[in-house]
Amino acid sequence: MRQVAARAGVAVSSVSRVLSKHPDVSPRMRDKVLTAVADLGYEPDLLAQSLRRGATLTIGFVVGDISNPLFSEIVLGAEVALQGAGYSLLVTNSRGMSEHDVEHIRLLNQRRVDGLLLSVSNERNTATIEELSRFHAPCVVIDRELPEAHGLGAVLSDHRTGIEQAVSHLAELGHRRIGFVGGSLDVRPTRARTQALLEACAASGVEAIPRCQSFTAEFGRTASRELLDLDDAPTAIIAGGNQILTGVLRTIRDRGLEVPGQLSLVTCDHLALAEFLQPPIATIDRDTFRMGRRAAEILLEMVRFGGDPRDLLPVTFAPGASCGPAPQR
Amino acid sequence: MRQVAARAGVAVSSVSRVLSKHPDVSPRMRDKVLTAVADLGYEPDLLAQSLRRGATLTIGFVVGDISNPLFSEIVLGAEVALQGAGYSLLVTNSRGMSEHDVEHIRLLNQRRVDGLLLSVSNERNTATIEELSRFHAPCVVIDRELPEAHGLGAVLSDHRTGIEQAVSHLAELGHRRIGFVGGSLDVRPTRARTQALLEACAASGVEAIPRCQSFTAEFGRTASRELLDLDDAPTAIIAGGNQILTGVLRTIRDRGLEVPGQLSLVTCDHLALAEFLQPPIATIDRDTFRMGRRAAEILLEMVRFGGDPRDLLPVTFAPGASCGPAPQR
Repeated sequence: MRQVAARAGVAVSSVSRVLSKHPDVSPRMRDKVLTAVADLGYEPDLLAQSLRRGATLTIGFVVGDISNPLFSEIVLGAEVALQGAGYSLLVTNSRGMSEHDVEHIRLLNQRRVDGLLLSVSNERNTATIEELSRFHAPCVVIDRELPEAHGLGAVLSDHRTGIEQAVSHLAELGHRRIGFVGGSLDVRPTRARTQALLEACAASGVEAIPRCQSFTAEFGRTASRELLDLDDAPTAIIAGGNQILTGVLRTIRDRGLEVPGQLSLVTCDHLALAEFLQPPIATIDRDTFRMGRRAAEILLEMVRFGGDPRDLLPVTFAPGASCGPAPQR
Repeated sequence: MRQVAARAGVAVSSVSRVLSKHPDVSPRMRDKVLTAVADLGYEPDLLAQSLRRGATLTIGFVVGDISNPLFSEIVLGAEVALQGAGYSLLVTNSRGMSEHDVEHIRLLNQRRVDGLLLSVSNERNTATIEELSRFHAPCVVIDRELPEAHGLGAVLSDHRTGIEQAVSHLAELGHRRIGFVGGSLDVRPTRARTQALLEACAASGVEAIPRCQSFTAEFGRTASRELLDLDDAPTAIIAGGNQILTGVLRTIRDRGLEVPGQLSLVTCDHLALAEFLQPPIATIDRDTFRMGRRAAEILLEMVRFGGDPRDLLPVTFAPGASCGPAPQR
C-alpha cells in the first residue's frame, strides 16, 4: 500500500479508503489510486484486508441438498442480485444431513462472509440454531422457519394458496380421498403443505391422507405403494418434491396404472422434461429464480441497514392432463 | 491460546501444534489440548490461523454452469471424498460466463483454499489461464483441457467410446446421416464428441452433420430445426447436453414427429424423468458421481504429494426405444 500511495502521490490512508470502498472518496482520488494499483500489478490480500476492515464482499449459501434441481434456479437468482452489488457467492451442500448444516455455518462464519443465505436440511436441529446464534452477520432463510431473532430475514413461499387451488380442482373432479407424499417434516415446505392440505380437504369434505418422511425417490415409491394398498385408497396423489415424483412415477409404472384414468397426479415444483411426459403433470409451482433473487436483495438490505425483513412469494397451481374425473370404485 | 495452554498445563506452542494438526504431536498431548479447548468453548479463528499455517481445510470448486443437473452429482461425489479427509467444499457458479470463471478463481485464491476443482465455462479464455497460473495451490480440471502445467491434474471422460458405440448402433439400423447438436466448442466435451463423431461416421461410411454453439434449450431447438430443414436431413440426431435435449424435444413436439418412426434420437448424460419419456431415450452416459469423487481424490493426492495425475473415466452407450430403423425417404 505504501508503494501504491507513493506512485499515486497520495497518503496511505487514502489508498486504504479507496480499496475498502469507503464512501467518502472523490472520483479523482479513486482514479489515481486505481491507476497506481493497475500500474504496479498490486494484488490486495483479501484475507489480511478483511481482517482489518471486517468485510469480504462474499455471501455464503448453506444449501440443504443441492441434488434437488430447485436449488440451481435459486442459486442463479441469488447470484444475479449479488453480482449487481459486487458480491460473490460461496455455496455449500449439506447432502440432507443436519451435522453438515452446522459445519458449513461455522465454516462460513470463520471465513467472515458478509451475510448468509440459509436453506438448511433440518430447521429443528438445536446445534444448527445454536451455531446460528453465534453468527456474526445477517442471515436470510429461504422457505425455512427458525426461531425469530434479530438479524434473521426470510423469503417464504405461500404454499397454502397452491395446495388450496389443487385440492379445489381435484374436489371438483369428484375426488374424495387425496394422498400426499411429502418430504421431511423438519423443513417448512412439508409442514406448510401438509397443514394446508388438511385444512383445504376438511373445508371441501375430502379425506386427506398425508405420508411425510423424506425427499427421496425411494420414499416416494414406497409411500405411494402404501397409499394405493389402503382399503380406501386415494384416487389422487400429490407428490411433495422432485425426487418424490420420480418415486411415485415408478410405482405408477410398476403397477401399470393409467393416469388420469385410474389415478390423478399432481406434483410440487417444476422439473425439466416434465413438459414432455404423457400426460403432462399438473404442477403446484413457484418462481424459484425470484426466490433466490429476493433472498439476496433482502440480505443486502440487511447488510446495509439491519432489520429483519420478510417476504411471502406466490405459489400457484397449473392444471394438467394428469388430473381427471375420480374413477368409480 | 494462552488460556487453553494454561488450562491444559502445556506450552502455547503445543496448543498451536495440536490445532494446526502438526504430525509431531502425541495422542496424550492432543487429548489434553482438545479437552481444554472444549472446556473453554475456545473457537479457533480460522482466518488468523490460516494466515499462520497456510492451510484452510477447504477446497474450491469453480463450476461453469450449475443449472446443468450434471453438476449436482459431480459436487456430491467430490464432497463425499473430501469430507472423509476432513475438508469442506466451497462452490461458485460462473453462469456460463468466462469473466466469472476468472473472478471466482481469483476469489478462491485470495481466500486461500487448499486446492481447486475446475469445470470452467470457457477453457480458451486467456484471462482464465493467466489467473490459474497465479494460483497458489493444486488444481484438478473436470473434463476440461487447459495448457499442461505443474500442479494441474485432470479427470476426463472417454467421450470417444460412447460416441463410437452410438454411431455404430445407428449405422446398423441403416442411418446414413447423423446430426449432432452440441454445446460450446470452448469446452472439451463438445470438441471430443464432435471429433469422435466425425471419425466414427467416416469409418462407417455415414455422413456426420454437427452443429455446435451453446448448451441451451434455445440453441437445441433452433439447431434441430435447421438440421431437419436440410435437403439431406439427418434421420438421427444426437443431443449433446441436458438443456439441448429439451430444445430438440420441443422441435420434435412442434413438428409432430414420431420417434423413432420418423427420427431416431440419442442424448448425452442422464437426466431425471428421462426414464418416463415415451419412448425412453437412448443415452450416452457416464458416472458423474464417480467423476466428482475421483477429481477430489486426485486433488487430495496432489495436496499431499504434488504431481499432476490424470484419469480417464468410461462413457458408455445405453440403447433405447428412441432409436429405430432409418426411415426410407
